[in-house]
Amino acid sequence: MSYNKTASITAETINPRVKTFNYEPCGEIARHAERLQEELNKNPGSRPFSEIIYCNLGNPQALGQRPITFFREVLSLCDNPALLQRDEASMLFSQCAIKRARKIIEAMPGKDSGPYTPSQGVKNLRESVADGIAGRDGYPSRPQDIFLTDGASSAVNLTMQILIRSEEDAILCPLPEYPLYSGSILLHGGTMVPYNLSEAGDWGLEIFEVKRCLEEARISGLTVRAMVVINPGNPTGQVLSVTNQEEIVEFCRKEGLVILADEVYQDNVYVEDKKFNSFKKVARSLGYNEDDISIVSYHSVSMGYYGECGRRGGYMEICGFGEDVMDEMCKVASLTLCPNIGGQILTSLVMDTPKIGDDCFEKFLAEKESIQASLVKRAKTLEKAFSSLEGVTCNRIEGAIYLFPRIHLPAAAIKAAKTEGVSPDIFYACRLLHDAGIAVVPGSGFHQVRLLYICKRKIGAARRLHTKFSSNC
Amino acid sequence: MSYNKTASITAETINPRVKTFNYEPCGEIARHAERLQEELNKNPGSRPFSEIIYCNLGNPQALGQRPITFFREVLSLCDNPALLQRDEASMLFSQCAIKRARKIIEAMPGKDSGPYTPSQGVKNLRESVADGIAGRDGYPSRPQDIFLTDGASSAVNLTMQILIRSEEDAILCPLPEYPLYSGSILLHGGTMVPYNLSEAGDWGLEIFEVKRCLEEARISGLTVRAMVVINPGNPTGQVLSVTNQEEIVEFCRKEGLVILADEVYQDNVYVEDKKFNSFKKVARSLGYNEDDISIVSYHSVSMGYYGECGRRGGYMEICGFGEDVMDEMCKVASLTLCPNIGGQILTSLVMDTPKIGDDCFEKFLAEKESIQASLVKRAKTLEKAFSSLEGVTCNRIEGAIYLFPRIHLPAAAIKAAKTEGVSPDIFYACRLLHDAGIAVVPGSGFHQVRLLYICKRKIGAARRLHTKFSSNC
Repeated sequence: MSYNKTASITAETINPRVKTFNYEPCGEIARHAERLQEELNKNPGSRPFSEIIYCNLGNPQALGQRPITFFREVLSLCDNPALLQRDEASMLFSQCAIKRARKIIEAMPGKDSGPYTPSQGVKNLRESVADGIAGRDGYPSRPQDIFLTDGASSAVNLTMQILIRSEEDAILCPLPEYPLYSGSILLHGGTMVPYNLSEAGDWGLEIFEVKRCLEEARISGLTVRAMVVINPGNPTGQVLSVTNQEEIVEFCRKEGLVILADEVYQDNVYVEDKKFNSFKKVARSLGYNEDDISIVSYHSVSMGYYGECGRRGGYMEICGFGEDVMDEMCKVASLTLCPNIGGQILTSLVMDTPKIGDDCFEKFLAEKESIQASLVKRAKTLEKAFSSLEGVTCNRIEGAIYLFPRIHLPAAAIKAAKTEGVSPDIFYACRLLHDAGIAVVPGSGFHQVRLLYICKRKIGAARRLHTKFSSNC
Repeated sequence: MSYNKTASITAETINPRVKTFNYEPCGEIARHAERLQEELNKNPGSRPFSEIIYCNLGNPQALGQRPITFFREVLSLCDNPALLQRDEASMLFSQCAIKRARKIIEAMPGKDSGPYTPSQGVKNLRESVADGIAGRDGYPSRPQDIFLTDGASSAVNLTMQILIRSEEDAILCPLPEYPLYSGSILLHGGTMVPYNLSEAGDWGLEIFEVKRCLEEARISGLTVRAMVVINPGNPTGQVLSVTNQEEIVEFCRKEGLVILADEVYQDNVYVEDKKFNSFKKVARSLGYNEDDISIVSYHSVSMGYYGECGRRGGYMEICGFGEDVMDEMCKVASLTLCPNIGGQILTSLVMDTPKIGDDCFEKFLAEKESIQASLVKRAKTLEKAFSSLEGVTCNRIEGAIYLFPRIHLPAAAIKAAKTEGVSPDIFYACRLLHDAGIAVVPGSGFHQVRLLYICKRKIGAARRLHTKFSSNC
């Protein structure tokens, strides 16, 4: 019997679009780090460090950030609603967590956390999210415009699935860029049109630069459908000024572009002179409503003071797409039935936190402020440490949880990289991993080395390595 | 200032592939049912029923199936590991749940359930799943071949993203078919090649029919890459015989097709003369290993006696794809970072349940057997009820949770449907919804009306409606 291999699955015969992108935060360096950790487990003492510090991904709780007690208590009760019938529960859970869990369970299909929910998410939870947005912005928000999602990444993928028809459809994306966007655009068959953020201008966005990229894209025959803006910036850490946001809104309105607003770091702002403003709020304050401009805002439970990455919770608020498009988005969402219920619940909690008078309010506030203070402190510490290193420059960290330094490598290091057949940033990142046990994302995708500042334990080791590197390589 | 609408988002300008498929379980009838429920809430008593019974989706816990206590206790503890430090926890949780939660948390990144995990899922949880598969099949299973996923649907979508390069790539799918497959294939730009299941042969699969479809597809220029087999069947409820499965394995091996085995109903078998066998087990028992044939097996926590739909947990075991393809799948999976942690934990529990000697074993077993007995009873009840209806025939329910009857409508009903401009099955399903409050999926996608047997509360009303329908329409 012959075995017909013609249709079998090899790296040569899979969907070629899969091979067009890289997602570096989970890429080669991350895999290398995992292998190194396994080696270390087998041979402790074989390296000058005992464990790898993973700074390649914004994963705060993996590096010691504590969860908010109220969130975890509500999740715990909703997972096991039988506890709500037990008097002993009040020994282990706060009254306000019990009250909130009761309210959530009451609104669930089947009055339990087990069933499928509607594909957009449980209506009452979407109402909490919409109320939270309205409270934040001072402009109305409607539950029918909210999709609860398995984190922001799923929401971005769903949007790209809807927007992209062919390679001729293009999306404007910032450089340096969080590679979810390029990955998702390429995977779904579209074209990414990059625009440069201005390092000299504190990673702000210059409209003339975006306009230049848009015009070039149009001349080359592309239909540009949307513009991604990440604010606060990933991986650049800037917080856009309102003036800058107004320019972007006017530009996208004039050019008929959807604003895809990555606003997942809205609770990570560290400087007194800047605050977070959603693009929807800026558009509404200019007098534009959903007939004037379409805006998709992404948020998730993974960042902020919450940092609940593994829960995969988030939402997107979609303004200006029209009911028929929303129906089609719902249909695509329904192919995976519904977002996970824990993520849905947590998203509602993040947007509707305990209030003054709730028995857990003081504790909630203390935990939140402690995490935020720690984030501010670490941002400053890392910024200062990097600025003091020879050959390193970096902008002020205004928000998000990343540091994106420029590292001027000496000619000898660049030559050594060439000898090894890798780019200098990968060479540097590999040495940082091997000699100091710190996993970072090489800047190839963004043009520079990126470090997460969430961890300051290793600054000493990194500094020593860097000094050695600059002088000896 | 002109407003350039050329690139704006309307139903006419979205990705046309989105419009090529329907996902009926969450489709028009489901939306109609939701509107009707809202009307009922506003005007109680306006219909001869007080609530809609949703039989359009396999959603057991929405219709009263109770969750397994052990599963919920472990989830609850893992969500709030602070409980594991508290003595009072033993008043609310069983010792074996506490022990299991400790073991799980110990193996988590950061020793908490908050962080991102590897994109394939936590290694220790994948080990539990692999051990569960090996125990079930009697053949080895490796954690590196397991992807933990947000339910089986996400796993199917990921597979299609990898397999489908263009419209020339085709996948064989059964008819009647669970429309996730057609939806996912069309959304990702491929072609579905349907093969008919044999209603006269208890919904079994006839290889000559599949071969005919394969040959026709090849003649028309398609490259057929894989064959979907749903066993136990959705929506047909059959359990394939080992002989039938062996034929399928031989066929796919000879033709170089990947077997995409939907095995999510492996714990839903209701007849003494049939049992579930995984395709991997059948292939291995024929002496074929992963160099001979590629098999992807999908499983989820949504069905079986567990029925935890909203958790979105599941796995796929991939045998025979090669390391480089697995790396690319990992990369695509990493675009959404990781499967939700609750789903990952629950998947490990479903595949590694309490054992004799554990303090919760008796209770676990009693709960499991009670749910299984209830499922068997309801299968028989519904099968009997439908078989007794005039003009209705249906096959034996051997497994899964669906009844797929053939309903012979009188000419007058067909004429009435035509007058309303809908197909007879939609007409019937609409009347069932309006007159009896039962939401079902019309058979258009499958050629017949489908009813979920999970609910027997409404048999009387449905029987009266059906009788009226058959005689009067």
